[in-house]
Amino acid sequence: MSIEALKSEVARQFGTPAVVIDLDVVERNIARVQALCDAAGIANRPHIKTHKSPVIAGMQREAGARGITCQKLGEAEIMAEGGQEDILIAYNLLGEEKMGRLGKLLSQVTVTVAADNPVVVAGLPHAAAIAGRDLEVVVECDTGRKRAGVETVAEAVALATDIASRPGLSFAGFMLYPPEDATVETQAFLDKATAGIREFGLEPRIVSTGGTPNLRNLGKMRNVTEHRAGTSVFNDRMMLAAGVAGLEDCALTVYATVVSRAGPERGILDSGSKTLTSDTGGGLDGHGLILEHPQARIARFAEEHGFLDLSACNDRPNIGDVVRIVPNHVCVVVNMVDRLVTVRGDRIVGELPVAARGRLI
Amino acid sequence: MSIEALKSEVARQFGTPAVVIDLDVVERNIARVQALCDAAGIANRPHIKTHKSPVIAGMQREAGARGITCQKLGEAEIMAEGGQEDILIAYNLLGEEKMGRLGKLLSQVTVTVAADNPVVVAGLPHAAAIAGRDLEVVVECDTGRKRAGVETVAEAVALATDIASRPGLSFAGFMLYPPEDATVETQAFLDKATAGIREFGLEPRIVSTGGTPNLRNLGKMRNVTEHRAGTSVFNDRMMLAAGVAGLEDCALTVYATVVSRAGPERGILDSGSKTLTSDTGGGLDGHGLILEHPQARIARFAEEHGFLDLSACNDRPNIGDVVRIVPNHVCVVVNMVDRLVTVRGDRIVGELPVAARGRLI
Repeated sequence: MSIEALKSEVARQFGTPAVVIDLDVVERNIARVQALCDAAGIANRPHIKTHKSPVIAGMQREAGARGITCQKLGEAEIMAEGGQEDILIAYNLLGEEKMGRLGKLLSQVTVTVAADNPVVVAGLPHAAAIAGRDLEVVVECDTGRKRAGVETVAEAVALATDIASRPGLSFAGFMLYPPEDATVETQAFLDKATAGIREFGLEPRIVSTGGTPNLRNLGKMRNVTEHRAGTSVFNDRMMLAAGVAGLEDCALTVYATVVSRAGPERGILDSGSKTLTSDTGGGLDGHGLILEHPQARIARFAEEHGFLDLSACNDRPNIGDVVRIVPNHVCVVVNMVDRLVTVRGDRIVGELPVAARGRLI
Repeated sequence: MSIEALKSEVARQFGTPAVVIDLDVVERNIARVQALCDAAGIANRPHIKTHKSPVIAGMQREAGARGITCQKLGEAEIMAEGGQEDILIAYNLLGEEKMGRLGKLLSQVTVTVAADNPVVVAGLPHAAAIAGRDLEVVVECDTGRKRAGVETVAEAVALATDIASRPGLSFAGFMLYPPEDATVETQAFLDKATAGIREFGLEPRIVSTGGTPNLRNLGKMRNVTEHRAGTSVFNDRMMLAAGVAGLEDCALTVYATVVSRAGPERGILDSGSKTLTSDTGGGLDGHGLILEHPQARIARFAEEHGFLDLSACNDRPNIGDVVRIVPNHVCVVVNMVDRLVTVRGDRIVGELPVAARGRLI
């Protein structure tokens, strides 16, 4: 089947917009990340926020991943149901509702959680008590991104000793998300924090780094034990812009139909912010890359309309054309749909449930 | 129960982030829109894209709405299952997959569809043939928004006669979405288009206008028969900014927990772009209004993190605090969750499924 025939067949069988992944590319991406981790001698702990699929998590484990990373407890629950047994929840979990669920999860599988403040740490023993086993806790450290994480070595050491002092909690190490250009600074932070905790007789069993762009920094830092990459499984326009993926590495495209050509320089796709999302991918121009018409700009959105600016386009799409779009940020697009259409090259395979879609709690 | 107690109880029962609607406010909003339509002597055809709930659509019908508006066929299917019998799909439907489903839907309930081009019109008779009954089609006209819709009177007339000439199709009238400041221009377009089709013996049975901000223009245009408003059922920060709703009219808030205070001027909510979405609401500053801390700016997002800039805030939230957020754009937030938590004032009622969530096809 040609790509044109594939597009027609996907539209006929599933309708558009359709969120489509090429499993050949997915497998290649999984293998590449695993090989990078293997070469650096560190464990691979992919972040499942990108695919939200226990099936793909299983493919990652099968390829050699030590375990997985989740952002939300609800994601971890779905992954545990799907057979994952070693889960890092890279998030401050807080409150009675969360502790009850965390306790239940911990009684079923190996769970490590992150914390960046004493209020969160103080709540975690409740989950351990419910599970009747120790909960591993890593201290999240911020070395420049200004996201979550303690900002100083002193806070990191204090939080580590706090964790170690709590009944039911075990200090597991440090979780980092180094800015791509701050490997040296992050190493300095890690070394000082490690020296600091050793004064209290603690050792970091886990030192976890993260991010798809940081895959090219693997091996540059000492004493890192594992890496969390998410987006690399599918890639997107953000990864293209960062220079860490080529078009041939983009496993996911959104198939959309041109439903209107209201003016000569305008067109409308049947995919708006409820499909492609308003995520700018960190300030990219336009809302996605149309493979068939790279000069067409997805200029703005209504909820179910993508408004095309075709002024820079010589070859303009016609009403009824099906086009493939590489989205700005793939992780949020996957989260819009309950199922992904799966293909291999120009052949339809089937559908894959996004089992953890919308698991935001 | 106080609001503080309500927040704690919602967090305990449902966890955060929780998307919460106050049914008292919803009912008031529904009644107000119906009263405005009644006063203007036009029919109310609310757009269900905002709530995606057959239950709330039922409340709107019960209050006096003639029928409903949907954007996607999948929404219309859910609404028909939920008992709605008069549905306008305000969208160009195209392709074999859509025509099959449209035909089935038309065999069950009264359906009107919009079209803005001859390619779409040419496909529609297939759906009518499947249903074995005529399909009503309105011509979508653009009078300044540069969205969907024909841009000229000549195109509108040509499309109306095209529809009227097709077996199984019935020309039903005009669908407009007038810019709020272009009532006069829209009236002129409508008058000319109506005169134009009369030369071919056609009459517009339906003249439909749309938009929540246009509720204040109801009655200003002649010969309008019905109005489509969506957002008014819940309202949001965009409607606050447009001056068409007050805080007391905002029925939906997102309950979020402060999970980190990584720096004195920073905080982190457990709600990021996978809950509140990156929709800027047409260029609003920040990603939502925090009722308890209106000076706190939701400055940026990760997928599951909302990053707070607290520099302008004297009264800063603590870790563990639950806050309520009026989102920028409520329609896209509802679409992120499978269920809404329902309250009345400071009392929890239960949960309401977002039955048409993610029905983008």
